[in-house]
Amino acid sequence: MPQVRFTLSLSADGFVAGPNQSLDTPLGERGRELHEWAFATRTFSQMQGREGGDTGLDDERAANWNRNVGATIMGRNMFGPVRGDWGDGTWDGWWGDDPPYHNPVFVLTHHPREPIEMQGGTTFHFVTDGIESALAQARDAAGDRDVAVAGGCSTVQQFLRAGLIDEFELHVAPVLLGRGERLFDSVDVGDAGYRCERVVSSPAVAHYLFSRSA
Amino acid sequence: MPQVRFTLSLSADGFVAGPNQSLDTPLGERGRELHEWAFATRTFSQMQGREGGDTGLDDERAANWNRNVGATIMGRNMFGPVRGDWGDGTWDGWWGDDPPYHNPVFVLTHHPREPIEMQGGTTFHFVTDGIESALAQARDAAGDRDVAVAGGCSTVQQFLRAGLIDEFELHVAPVLLGRGERLFDSVDVGDAGYRCERVVSSPAVAHYLFSRSA
Repeated sequence: MPQVRFTLSLSADGFVAGPNQSLDTPLGERGRELHEWAFATRTFSQMQGREGGDTGLDDERAANWNRNVGATIMGRNMFGPVRGDWGDGTWDGWWGDDPPYHNPVFVLTHHPREPIEMQGGTTFHFVTDGIESALAQARDAAGDRDVAVAGGCSTVQQFLRAGLIDEFELHVAPVLLGRGERLFDSVDVGDAGYRCERVVSSPAVAHYLFSRSA
Repeated sequence: MPQVRFTLSLSADGFVAGPNQSLDTPLGERGRELHEWAFATRTFSQMQGREGGDTGLDDERAANWNRNVGATIMGRNMFGPVRGDWGDGTWDGWWGDDPPYHNPVFVLTHHPREPIEMQGGTTFHFVTDGIESALAQARDAAGDRDVAVAGGCSTVQQFLRAGLIDEFELHVAPVLLGRGERLFDSVDVGDAGYRCERVVSSPAVAHYLFSRSA
């Protein structure tokens, strides 16, 4: 049964991004520190087209972000820094010609735009009629594989609040950001039926996998 | 060099206590779930005067709460459910005749009260002139040992905001409470200079130890 799921890194004080996100600091100030554990892995090196990187637990969990994923959903702010209409229409994501998704990516936006077919199987589709529509299209595209809600924070919160997430993994990094975007602000999942399947850690991070029976 | 420190269990969504704390549920609704990892340890069994309990990592971290502690500070609400003045003056804590502290405990309150000497080396002192005074008295009493800020949430927040904490350990339990008291609400420790010394986990919980150089 295909799952709708997300995976996010957060600080020990609960932030998934630092403050003051910008073109130069898309993860916000100090936001990169949340992902140091992932940057060190072979999975990340391969995404960057490089050799090397650590194997082991963190690599195994890092690889999970796109494992068995047949379609992806993301918010407009994760897709790029362009606000309002699409301007000259040249922005095609942060990820270069061959984005790491390798599946159809549904971008939530208020501004229509034609699909953009990238290399390697990633096509960006722009969805203007809300998260339920995006999910229906993503499920169709994914077939018997999972749908990943990639982010950012407010998109994941919308899916959690709507009760649409089956499974998620939290990578709690050993850093304190103090401020930024907090995943569990204005999202109460206390009664949503999630159980932790597993908590495991490396010296760099602890991974919590939550799921619920449908 | 003696440290001022605390240790707290929190949920993966950041809560150190559930909502609706009362005499029957002093940890708030579902608050006990944050401490299941600790209840399973030999350290906790011994505190309850029982045999048994698990040894290993969690027990080692559970025992740390009072290791090398020479004095303790707690908020009035942690000491008990009595509000306002001390009424008939019979409340002497949740912990029976022989509380687990075995050192002087300074209780923050607006209402003066004579010290209460319990068995086993615990004496409750009531401090009416604020956290700095309580800390000075606790340091005096502790000598070359550490001062533990035991809780609750708002007391720990006051000490964090005042920059008085040298070291702390977070036990992040694999549960989602959804609501309750959140440690890092209205407390920004992003620039306070804490570094994570170590993250370790068992199948029941992950432990994060933070400290800063003085």
